[in-house]
Amino acid sequence: MSNFSAPDFLKQLKWRYATKQFDASKKIPQDLWEALEDSLILTPSSFGLQPWHFFVIENLELREKLQAHSWGQAQVTECSHFLVLASRRSVGEEEIDQFLKHSAKLRGEEIESLTPYRDMMSGFIGHMDESQKAQWAKLQTYIALGQLMTSAATLGIDACPMEGIDANEYDALLGLPEKGLKTSVACALGYRAESDKYASAAKVRFEKDQLLTRL
Amino acid sequence: MSNFSAPDFLKQLKWRYATKQFDASKKIPQDLWEALEDSLILTPSSFGLQPWHFFVIENLELREKLQAHSWGQAQVTECSHFLVLASRRSVGEEEIDQFLKHSAKLRGEEIESLTPYRDMMSGFIGHMDESQKAQWAKLQTYIALGQLMTSAATLGIDACPMEGIDANEYDALLGLPEKGLKTSVACALGYRAESDKYASAAKVRFEKDQLLTRL
Repeated sequence: MSNFSAPDFLKQLKWRYATKQFDASKKIPQDLWEALEDSLILTPSSFGLQPWHFFVIENLELREKLQAHSWGQAQVTECSHFLVLASRRSVGEEEIDQFLKHSAKLRGEEIESLTPYRDMMSGFIGHMDESQKAQWAKLQTYIALGQLMTSAATLGIDACPMEGIDANEYDALLGLPEKGLKTSVACALGYRAESDKYASAAKVRFEKDQLLTRL
Repeated sequence: MSNFSAPDFLKQLKWRYATKQFDASKKIPQDLWEALEDSLILTPSSFGLQPWHFFVIENLELREKLQAHSWGQAQVTECSHFLVLASRRSVGEEEIDQFLKHSAKLRGEEIESLTPYRDMMSGFIGHMDESQKAQWAKLQTYIALGQLMTSAATLGIDACPMEGIDANEYDALLGLPEKGLKTSVACALGYRAESDKYASAAKVRFEKDQLLTRL
């Protein structure tokens, strides 16, 4: 069920673009920002394990330090809200336990009743080596990035996803290794500057028949 | 700019869940399905390179074969539309050229004017070995998965993302290696069955202060 019309929704997806210049004077209103935070938290993940942590960088001095490790891109300091998506360096029995305990509490279930689910998760994750686990966790953060950008577009907020960042330097500045986290990707959010010429450039997508096949 | 209200939108994100039982008799109407295809095509990707291909599996016999390599999960055959997201096995100068040619055509630009952009992409991608390129392409498909699930929820369509599939067997059944593609992840889409007890289970997410930090 939905009250949203498909044409209106697609209009939002077409309106979005990777914003190069933000209007530094325009801030995302608190209620809309909280909605974006909620959409991040609500992001689906494999088994529901949520192997991530999100950092909202408000401090301008810290943003300037991060900018130095982001090819100097202006978005880091000019956007309204700068977000760093981090993934867990590893996922193991401890994280599974923590998740199941939380799940049992929320759903009023006995944790023992979740044993088959635990076994399934342990089996899936136990098959991966450390590097694969980190990679798997990173993949999940890209679902969050996707949900975030779609949510922002739906709510009329501009965004610029940023892969061109030095993850190791970000890690050091944010103290992530000691938290068991690593920088995955960043996203600048706010409102486009009127002077951003990319706003009016034609969107470049391959034709549907080049990207999609029905079998 | 947007006519969508944040509370209404969040209601849709809370309404969604990983659907375990689809009502096989309910098909997604053509106009809504086309909107989901459009949202896939519109997904943002790094540099806009779109290193992906999407397969809509309509043939029931093929779905049954895929199901055998999906832990037998019922969603594969019971959902309205079954989608396989594939990523490019590698990305190199050829893909960059193809993209720039398309971009220049759409925007009415001289391809030579895009040289600085080409150099930036070549530099970024040239730094990666083959395995990193494949991994980078796979990450992009997870943005598409995120945008797809958010789009489906917004339009009132149920979905179940599926990582628990045997990608090599999928590759073989879909003939992907010879197309330079590999299976990344799948997603079943349609409408929940009334009997799916997971529809009413409390959503399990960690608290916001466990997942998000403001700095």
